[in-house]
Amino acid sequence: MAEDDFTGLPGSIAIVGVGLMGGSLGLALRGLPNAPRIVGIGRSPERLQRAVDVGAVDSVSTDLDAVGDVDAVFLCTTIQHIVDNIGPVLKRASRRATVTDVGSTKGAIVRRAGGHPNFVGGHPMAGSERAGVDSAVAGLYRGATWALTPTSDTDPRHVARARAVAEAAGATVLILEPDVHDAIVAITSHVPHVVAAALMQEAGRVRGEHAEAGSMTAGSFADTTRIAASPPEIWRDVCLTNRDAVLKALGNVADRLRVLAEAVEAEDPAAVEAFFAAGRDAKADWPAR
Amino acid sequence: MAEDDFTGLPGSIAIVGVGLMGGSLGLALRGLPNAPRIVGIGRSPERLQRAVDVGAVDSVSTDLDAVGDVDAVFLCTTIQHIVDNIGPVLKRASRRATVTDVGSTKGAIVRRAGGHPNFVGGHPMAGSERAGVDSAVAGLYRGATWALTPTSDTDPRHVARARAVAEAAGATVLILEPDVHDAIVAITSHVPHVVAAALMQEAGRVRGEHAEAGSMTAGSFADTTRIAASPPEIWRDVCLTNRDAVLKALGNVADRLRVLAEAVEAEDPAAVEAFFAAGRDAKADWPAR
Repeated sequence: MAEDDFTGLPGSIAIVGVGLMGGSLGLALRGLPNAPRIVGIGRSPERLQRAVDVGAVDSVSTDLDAVGDVDAVFLCTTIQHIVDNIGPVLKRASRRATVTDVGSTKGAIVRRAGGHPNFVGGHPMAGSERAGVDSAVAGLYRGATWALTPTSDTDPRHVARARAVAEAAGATVLILEPDVHDAIVAITSHVPHVVAAALMQEAGRVRGEHAEAGSMTAGSFADTTRIAASPPEIWRDVCLTNRDAVLKALGNVADRLRVLAEAVEAEDPAAVEAFFAAGRDAKADWPAR
Repeated sequence: MAEDDFTGLPGSIAIVGVGLMGGSLGLALRGLPNAPRIVGIGRSPERLQRAVDVGAVDSVSTDLDAVGDVDAVFLCTTIQHIVDNIGPVLKRASRRATVTDVGSTKGAIVRRAGGHPNFVGGHPMAGSERAGVDSAVAGLYRGATWALTPTSDTDPRHVARARAVAEAAGATVLILEPDVHDAIVAITSHVPHVVAAALMQEAGRVRGEHAEAGSMTAGSFADTTRIAASPPEIWRDVCLTNRDAVLKALGNVADRLRVLAEAVEAEDPAAVEAFFAAGRDAKADWPAR
């Protein structure tokens, strides 16, 4: 590393996993005047070559040892892969390198980092139901919240450096405790994905009975089920690494659905209207983005 | 009425209830070269004047007797209002007038029409979480499916006339039995609205605990909860007039959520992944619109 400045953009970054998230990070940073040198690390030479072709990285490596040469390492693979590789990466990274990630759950990942002072968990609230570097866009993180989840063990200089990169990509940083992060995203992201999948499964069953159902949709169906197209293995990992918070949020949503079902069953107009009014009020009260 | 042609656009139409749906119908038809004369009927002189101002109707009336002068009557109010007024409208309408509606549920409305040969139930699959004639747009029905639900009692000439109007507004007509219609929209529209409200309620509760939740959202949350902003009284009427189908669809969705919860509880990766894969497959298999 050339210098000791942790508050500006680092001179070099390794992106482990150059898919939608990692590729978009590379594109965002390489478009800057002070762009860091970016090495993409992955297992598939073909996919790494695509990352070069779309301009997401300067160079590539299939060897995890390549993290040893950079100022900051961004783990942008699946959650399970991050959990499995966080130890090896911290071991191979330079003594002064920041190590962070973009995984959608933080408790399991942060625990696996074992209080290493160089590690700071991260989670940009951006994404898409699509996957792969060919879906990557430079503007993915623009205007998004990028959560960072340092612990009392984390060296604040590494928080500053992770923040500098997130902000350079156009995001706004929010510092959260890992468990608070996980409780929040369980309801703002994880359970919505579960619900979209359940709606889509049931709609598919009804369409098996009545083929006309395929034409009987409007914007509400398109919007509420868009994310059902997301990669199953990603949401498997999310649910399993955020088990308790997902179960709690899902149980609470199921309880609320039962309240509506009972009101409809009882043909109670005031109770049914109150249910929808409570949803509308919560929506109206939610901060505009 | 000037002539006996039921297959072309009628010469005159009454729109009862000039809000988002009725106003958009008026705008769509008045933009045509062979536009029918359109009278808007409602209770509020101020709202009727807005309908004139935005160009949705030619004339207005606060008297339901005005339906007696036209070739076709479109009931575009809330479902409960349609149910309450379908008898009086059929009594006041011309002997040769088509009477139809745009309500989101069909069984209760069609039953209330009591087998009148001039009545054909209708439901354009278009809308918005907004309400009122100021949200009306001429293109609302363009490309949408417009379900018509005639029964064996319905005079086919009135189906032809309702179809002519729907197609003139840019929609594609789909003929369905009322009960099949209701079973389909329970899952493609009604339960998604229930789920959006439940998600939003629970998100609001979590935000009360952790204010940062307000910043921790991405497109998935915005999309799955957009329709939580819809008018509660509309969705109250939908649930109460489609009670059995909504309860069945909601129960089935709840069962599916329980399947996921049990798989997460058991930390069963294959079962969790299979849940999301089933949703993704149903989505991929759904006809493009």
